[in-house]
Amino acid sequence: MPSRLTAIYHVRSDARAIAARAQAVAVEQSVEMPLSAIQDQQILDEIVGRVEDINDLGGGTFAVRIGLSRATVGDDGGQLINMLFGNSSLQDDVVLHDAEFPDDLVRSFGGPRQGLAGLRERAGGEKRALTCSALKPQGLPPDRLAELAARFARGGIDYIKDDHGLADQAYSPFAARVGAVADALRAVERETGHRTRYVPSLTGDLDALRGQIAAARNAGLDTVMVQPMIIGLSSFAKLVRENPDIAFFAHPTLAGAARIAPPLLFGKIFRMLGADALVFPNYGGRFGYSPDLCRQIARIALAEWHGLKPAVPVPAGGMSRKRVPEMLDFYGSEVMLLIGGALLEARERLTQETAAFVAEVKGYQHT
Amino acid sequence: MPSRLTAIYHVRSDARAIAARAQAVAVEQSVEMPLSAIQDQQILDEIVGRVEDINDLGGGTFAVRIGLSRATVGDDGGQLINMLFGNSSLQDDVVLHDAEFPDDLVRSFGGPRQGLAGLRERAGGEKRALTCSALKPQGLPPDRLAELAARFARGGIDYIKDDHGLADQAYSPFAARVGAVADALRAVERETGHRTRYVPSLTGDLDALRGQIAAARNAGLDTVMVQPMIIGLSSFAKLVRENPDIAFFAHPTLAGAARIAPPLLFGKIFRMLGADALVFPNYGGRFGYSPDLCRQIARIALAEWHGLKPAVPVPAGGMSRKRVPEMLDFYGSEVMLLIGGALLEARERLTQETAAFVAEVKGYQHT
Repeated sequence: MPSRLTAIYHVRSDARAIAARAQAVAVEQSVEMPLSAIQDQQILDEIVGRVEDINDLGGGTFAVRIGLSRATVGDDGGQLINMLFGNSSLQDDVVLHDAEFPDDLVRSFGGPRQGLAGLRERAGGEKRALTCSALKPQGLPPDRLAELAARFARGGIDYIKDDHGLADQAYSPFAARVGAVADALRAVERETGHRTRYVPSLTGDLDALRGQIAAARNAGLDTVMVQPMIIGLSSFAKLVRENPDIAFFAHPTLAGAARIAPPLLFGKIFRMLGADALVFPNYGGRFGYSPDLCRQIARIALAEWHGLKPAVPVPAGGMSRKRVPEMLDFYGSEVMLLIGGALLEARERLTQETAAFVAEVKGYQHT
Repeated sequence: MPSRLTAIYHVRSDARAIAARAQAVAVEQSVEMPLSAIQDQQILDEIVGRVEDINDLGGGTFAVRIGLSRATVGDDGGQLINMLFGNSSLQDDVVLHDAEFPDDLVRSFGGPRQGLAGLRERAGGEKRALTCSALKPQGLPPDRLAELAARFARGGIDYIKDDHGLADQAYSPFAARVGAVADALRAVERETGHRTRYVPSLTGDLDALRGQIAAARNAGLDTVMVQPMIIGLSSFAKLVRENPDIAFFAHPTLAGAARIAPPLLFGKIFRMLGADALVFPNYGGRFGYSPDLCRQIARIALAEWHGLKPAVPVPAGGMSRKRVPEMLDFYGSEVMLLIGGALLEARERLTQETAAFVAEVKGYQHT
């Protein structure tokens, strides 16, 4: 019996048409040709996608389980998403809802190298929620971003990530920015004893990404952010494999999560490929995610799954200090809270606001 | 006046809320923070996205034109799509409908290096529609794929592309497949005098992609296929820049075109980054594209635009011989017709069916 992975699609259809539509998705995501033209029994048995179950969810939506050949994926992250959702992403009636992977596939990617425990360790080792903010706006030169970082750091925050719009722009080249921010944070550490981690955003092709990781290492950093759907899942997995000592934040930009269920894409696939921290849109912010969806993402990111380390859920997007108790109630302590713009709004009181945010998280009594 | 690109979003909203929603998209796609927290006039003037126009399209949809800073994009394809649609891709009410780019941005990518004329030249230079088929199913070993390719070639077809599911799998490693198919096509050329171009599909990270292009060159090939949304737009643009003599087919897999308008993504962005041939789902096949949408894609791929070479539209997905006259009427002669599974269904008559397809295209009298 050859190894298979299972994709679970949600398909809009009427009851009479669903069997044929499910079979069509199984063919689309495997051999993409009429089965009558296939003369090899082994391909029909092992390579062609197989409809394993159809479950009527009501309201004209059906959950369709399709078994796909493990051998078609190999060890490549790009080919994995191609087999799970490549052409079907172009069809309006199909959402990739979930997937189950054979153990050897998950282990070949390996998941988070640091995970929750490693990111807590970098932040001092306490078993509490982690804190994070963001460097913005883009357009600022390196010295101004470094100054901003220092003010966050004086407030005692654990992590400062780049806004995902920061790249390698002429007005703020990556190497200059990373050097300036790292220097500023070291200066604050000498002053306060507190070490804040800077998490620069890597962009570009694999050559550029490698150059940026080297520049980050040079500056003494050990944590970076990537945009898996923009750099490509192949390049993401490669970076993780080449840098087992680095912690990776995954940003959801271009994830088009309306068509791939976010718990699968962030909680399983990004984690499987090696994301240590998963940034995703929190409920009640600028994005339309429901509390239930956010709870699912967080639960799946942390769950026991093929022996991988837990990844840290990072709900974000329009968060503010007044939501801290509610979010800690909701997510518990295995979370990183990320407040960006709302801290920056404090302007000259940025350090004090940051310190209040940090104190609130550290002092919170989880019930 | 700093250079800007313009993104045109279609936003679902009610009339009272659209001005605020448009402004929110402009902020999301640029500085992603409260404007009240930005102290630099230059950033407010040049970097923050600017709502330039809101046009009520009726039915609760508005066309919103937003000017974005050219400087935030640099020369990177990944950063381009990040700035155009990164976070907004996570919001259900927004579709990226179109974009206008400053001339220097388009020229820095450079567009198709071969384009329509180059792909016609490789196929003998006649001013007619080009023909193409696909190697499948995945699961076949190299020698069986090579045998299939030879049968297509004996039918006189111009191009044979890999099915986009073919990668570097254990049962059909890329280098072995490319060598076997290229040898088989050379043998047919010695026999018939007709040279069919093989277009292998490249997959994986940039290292793998480069290795595969080198293997393709080694085998005497000059045309390849890529999956821009899976390998990442940065890697795609890099490959094109490094290989100006190679022709690139772009496959639409994972393009999630329901949220990015296909004429923009395929006809402008893929072309701008260097795609010579644009595979897209034809109307009346397995995908839900309308005739009007397909006509738009083809028109934009071929249109005069910033001095780029035209890219060849390749409508595909469930096409068959009986649709050839209709498609040639519809698209004219500046097109490549791609029939895959329907030719393979002919089984032992594959070469004859291919020859009939080729003869029909060559003999067609465009009115």
